[in-house]
Parts: sequence; structure tokens; C-alpha cells
Amino acid sequence: MTQKAKRTLTAKTITMAHGSGGKAMRDLIEDVFVSVFDNEDLNALEDQARFDLAELQAEGAQLAFTTDSYVVDPVIFPGGNIGTLAINGTVNDLAVSGAIPRYLSCSMILEEGLDVELLRQVVASMRQAADEAGVTIVTGDTKVVPKGKGDKIFINTSGIGVIPRGVNIAATRSQPGDKVIVNGFVGDHGAAILNARGDLALEVELQTDCQPLHRLVQAMLEVCPDLHAVRDASRGGVATVLNEFAETAEVAIRLYEQQIPVRTEVRGVCEILGLDALYFANEGKLVATVPADKADAVLAAMRSTAEGRDAAIIGEVITGRAGRVTVQTGFGGERIMDMLVGEQLPRIC
Amino acid sequence: MTQKAKRTLTAKTITMAHGSGGKAMRDLIEDVFVSVFDNEDLNALEDQARFDLAELQAEGAQLAFTTDSYVVDPVIFPGGNIGTLAINGTVNDLAVSGAIPRYLSCSMILEEGLDVELLRQVVASMRQAADEAGVTIVTGDTKVVPKGKGDKIFINTSGIGVIPRGVNIAATRSQPGDKVIVNGFVGDHGAAILNARGDLALEVELQTDCQPLHRLVQAMLEVCPDLHAVRDASRGGVATVLNEFAETAEVAIRLYEQQIPVRTEVRGVCEILGLDALYFANEGKLVATVPADKADAVLAAMRSTAEGRDAAIIGEVITGRAGRVTVQTGFGGERIMDMLVGEQLPRIC
Repeated sequence: MTQKAKRTLTAKTITMAHGSGGKAMRDLIEDVFVSVFDNEDLNALEDQARFDLAELQAEGAQLAFTTDSYVVDPVIFPGGNIGTLAINGTVNDLAVSGAIPRYLSCSMILEEGLDVELLRQVVASMRQAADEAGVTIVTGDTKVVPKGKGDKIFINTSGIGVIPRGVNIAATRSQPGDKVIVNGFVGDHGAAILNARGDLALEVELQTDCQPLHRLVQAMLEVCPDLHAVRDASRGGVATVLNEFAETAEVAIRLYEQQIPVRTEVRGVCEILGLDALYFANEGKLVATVPADKADAVLAAMRSTAEGRDAAIIGEVITGRAGRVTVQTGFGGERIMDMLVGEQLPRIC
Repeated sequence: MTQKAKRTLTAKTITMAHGSGGKAMRDLIEDVFVSVFDNEDLNALEDQARFDLAELQAEGAQLAFTTDSYVVDPVIFPGGNIGTLAINGTVNDLAVSGAIPRYLSCSMILEEGLDVELLRQVVASMRQAADEAGVTIVTGDTKVVPKGKGDKIFINTSGIGVIPRGVNIAATRSQPGDKVIVNGFVGDHGAAILNARGDLALEVELQTDCQPLHRLVQAMLEVCPDLHAVRDASRGGVATVLNEFAETAEVAIRLYEQQIPVRTEVRGVCEILGLDALYFANEGKLVATVPADKADAVLAAMRSTAEGRDAAIIGEVITGRAGRVTVQTGFGGERIMDMLVGEQLPRIC
């Protein structure tokens, strides 16, 4: 069934009735979600999407499945909003396994009193981001909570992708000798959110780096089918991912501070706050460990893409105390870059 | 990698640091979630689960994919809690397509200050419900929002299942002549939640009917591979599902009030509040339209299962004004049972 939706929602703000399961909810779903996401699976308004995944019939292909809830504050920020984040964040959690992202779900928890126009703006961004990433939002859910029991919009997106045969990217696989590569400037998203909250009163242009990364990963796989570890450096930043890599593979990692791309503006935010950009969230950055003999080829392949044009080799995997990540400074010193303890930037994604 | 988790979380309440992406979050995830859900996919702590789905390679098999967020208030209620609901609700959204539910995701939005013991209780219930339903929780996510920006625990579960070849259950397929069948007493969940909120001060035993329905649907399919429409009657109740059926298939539906199983206690709640049990949420009830010549066989098959022992034929699909659902009362009268307008029971699931 294709049940093309109409402009049925006249309310200006969300009320508890929009979560009741009745007519008001149906109007909200058809008008705000289905009419924009608009595809055969979703339009059927069944409780589940159903589809073939012909690629999965290839011997050795695997399904990838992931989930993420987004609670970022503020909901709209320079370069994106919670909707673009919800699409790209989940696309990227699939992408870093080597998967081609295919289908996404969208579940919203709306706070009573939410401005419907804001919701429409977020949904429009989700459709645009989904189109850019080549994924389809095929199933959804909407709940409404009383004012003061939520915060405008929380979004969960779960996603399904297909990992082609022979790809075996895993945090366990980093080996001494591997080069550590990042696909561009680190810390942009964290700095942009901090700045958007208005606490800093900085007059700088800071934008989220929110972007889908699956095409970049596929370009890397083309020149190096044996990529070792890849992870997107969202909450906790590059530092956290590298600590996870080192701990999981029982290796040490050494970074070269001067090779890490950080924008001047982000460096400025860090200096003011006494924070480290390596712990800042990113929403379009990945960190990879790559066999040394393939590192230059992978770097060149990354730089030939829009998502990786500022890619850099920032360190290497070494034998040493398992789980330890260190940074060599420009002055020849070395410091330990531990996992983040406590809270640095809450509600960054 | 199997990274068996340890008892690392010493905090008694959730703090913002538990959502930071750093060490506190890792401790929470390993100790509270991974140690309980405990399976190879999840234990790897990758950003996505990866698996084969060999059943999908059978010609004609389809993937089913669904999502639901749970915001029920109170979090714990007679017969279950938000965790059992989050498992069975998503299992049932898969089940009603004829799918065998296989893999679930679990994404939590926790409110700062949440009692960790309460969280452990919910997670233990999720594991138990997943085991009973035969599904595995393979990927997850945790966010923390400041006190007053959430409400204890919100849970999203998304799910993947496999629809065997030849099954074609759809809301479009109800036809005049079909019998309408429900698998037992209606309205239990809604009445139990209302009573648990303490507003009624009734001294009755009311329990949620929360249970997985996929085995029931498979038993129905065994005697009638051509089931027409099946949907679980959660938010909005049986009345809403039947209105959706009638509207989508452009048929009319007539119910026989005296044949609808409603517990005396639930009837009592309805009378006090002037509400109709047909609009009450259920969490273990489905409504099906079945070809007339198979209705008795399907009913018998349902009654032979624990989930369907109180099943009843409650009405029939008729030619008539498309989208209209009516109820014949015991006195020979007839009333229209419209879609729920406005809000009846907020935060019921």
C-alpha cells in the first residue's frame, strides 16, 4: 500500500494526544514523518518494514546492525541539527565495520509543547541527510512525554547495512607497526556545540563536521582490503577510540602531536577552557589502524574523497605496555593520553 | 573478542559522567549491560553487531525490521516493568508480520540521579524476557540527560526478524467474510498501568498481559498460511487496530460486544472512569482477520497455546462503508467505534 500522506496536522505545538495512539498521532505521523520520508515500506504504516536484502545472499556477506539515541543540546547548531546527527551518526556506526548502510529506523520522544515547525525542520534535515547517505528510513515510532519529562526532541535511529565478503575490520586487529590515520580536523563538532550553547561568547565560525563516512571507508577498502581497525571518533573523541583500540588489541599507540590536524579556532576554544581537542566529539571523523605498507596508499585514497581531503597519519601502533596511548609533543616530550575520566562535554550528541 | 565484564560500577546513582563517552560510561556499560546481556556480538563492544542470517538465503524469505521507544510511567508495574515491555513490544511488532524475531538492539536514555539498582532490575528483566522470546540483544547505546530533562529511564529497542517464504500478512488484506479473532482478555495492560499510578485506589489485582506473541502467530500460520491481517493491539487498543484494518483495506468491521473477552476487574475500572476497554493498551494481545473457512481451525490452534488459551472470535469483516467499525451490543443496538480522538491514557507504553 502506498498511502501518500496529506497536510493533516494543524496543531502548532505537540500535545499529549499526539502520543496517544489515536487520530492525533496518526495525523502527526502521516503529515510530519511519512509525507517527508515517503517510501513504500514506511508508507504502508505497518508495525515493521519488510524487505529483501539480495546482497546478503552472497556467500560470506554479513548483516551489520546498530543503534544510537541522540539527545544533543541545543537541538539546532551551526552546520546541522539533531536530525542530521541522527542519520549520519548511525550511518557511521555501520560504515566503520565496512558495511554499506541501507535501512534506518527513526523513533522520536517528543516533549509536550514542542514547536511543530522545529520538528518539521528536523525531519526535513533527516530526509536530506538520508538521501545524501543513500539510506532509507523504513520504520518509525513516536512517543510524547509531559513537559519537563523530556527535552524537546530525542531521536533514536537504528540501522542495517551489509558487510561485503572478506571485510574484517575489528578493534582487536591493530598490530605493532600499523599506522594510525584520521580523516581530517579533529574536535569540530564538540567545539561547535560548546560554542552554540553560548557559554563561550566567542566570535569564531565553528561548524559541526557531521557527514556520512561509508564512501570514505569503501575507498580505503579498495586500496587496502585488510584494514585493521576503524571507528568513528564521536563521544569521547579520538583519544577514547585510541584507548579502546590499544586496550582491546593489547598494544600501545604513540601519537605525534604536530601531525594531528586541529583547526586554529578549535585550538582557541581548547586553550580558553583548558580542554584537549582529542577528547572532543566528532561526527564525521574516523580513526583507522592500517598495515604500514599500505598506509600511504590508504592516505592518498582518503585524500581523493571530500570526507578525507585533510586526512593525516597521526601516529603508530607500537609494542609497549598494553593499553597505553602516548602523545609525543613538538618539544620531544611525551605524555600519557588516558581514557576520559569524569564528564567533559555532556549531551554532545 | 569476548570481553567478559566485571563488577566495575560502584556509583549508586547515575551521573552525567556515565554518558560522557569516557571511563565512567565504559564501567556502566560493561557492568550493568554487557555482563547481563552477555553474548558474543555485544561483548565485542564494537559500534555495531555483525552476523549471518542464514535463513535469509532461503528464496522468498524477507527481513523484518522495527523500532519502538518505551516511556511508560511508572517504570515498574504489576506483572512487569519498562524492560519486559521493551523486549516483548518489539518482539510483537516483528511477530505480527509472521517473522521469527532474532536480534534486538537496546538504547537507553537515563536521567541523572537514577537509582542504579532500579536500572539493574530493569536490565535483568530484559535479559529474562529476551531469553523467553528467544532473541538476543546484540548492540546498544547509553545516553544520560540532566535531572528534569528526562524521566528515569526511556528505552528504545529495535528488532530484526526473518519472515519465512510465502507468508503475506498485511493490513490491506482483510476481506468481507473474514472473522476477527483476538487471543484473549483485552485492556489488561492499560488498566494495570492506570491502577499502578495509584489514582484509582482500587483494591483489585490487575496485571499487565505483557508476553511475546511470535509462537502464537506461528501456530496460527501452521493451520492457516494465508492469514490476512495481524496486528498487536498496544497503544490505542483493539479499537484502533480495527479502525486501521478497516481504513486500510477499505472494508467495514462489525464486532459482537458479548463475545469480547474483558476481565471483570478491567470492566470495573472502565465503569468507574467512563472509559472503554477496547481503547485500552495491551502488551500481549493481537487482533487478526482470518478467512471464514479457517477461523475455527485458527481459533483451536490459538487456544492450544498459553498465549491464546482465551482466544475468541469477536466479529467479522463486512461489506459496508469503508473504514467503519461498529459494535453490536447485547441488546441488539449498534454503535460506531471510531478511532480514538484526543488523549485517553498517556505514557502507557
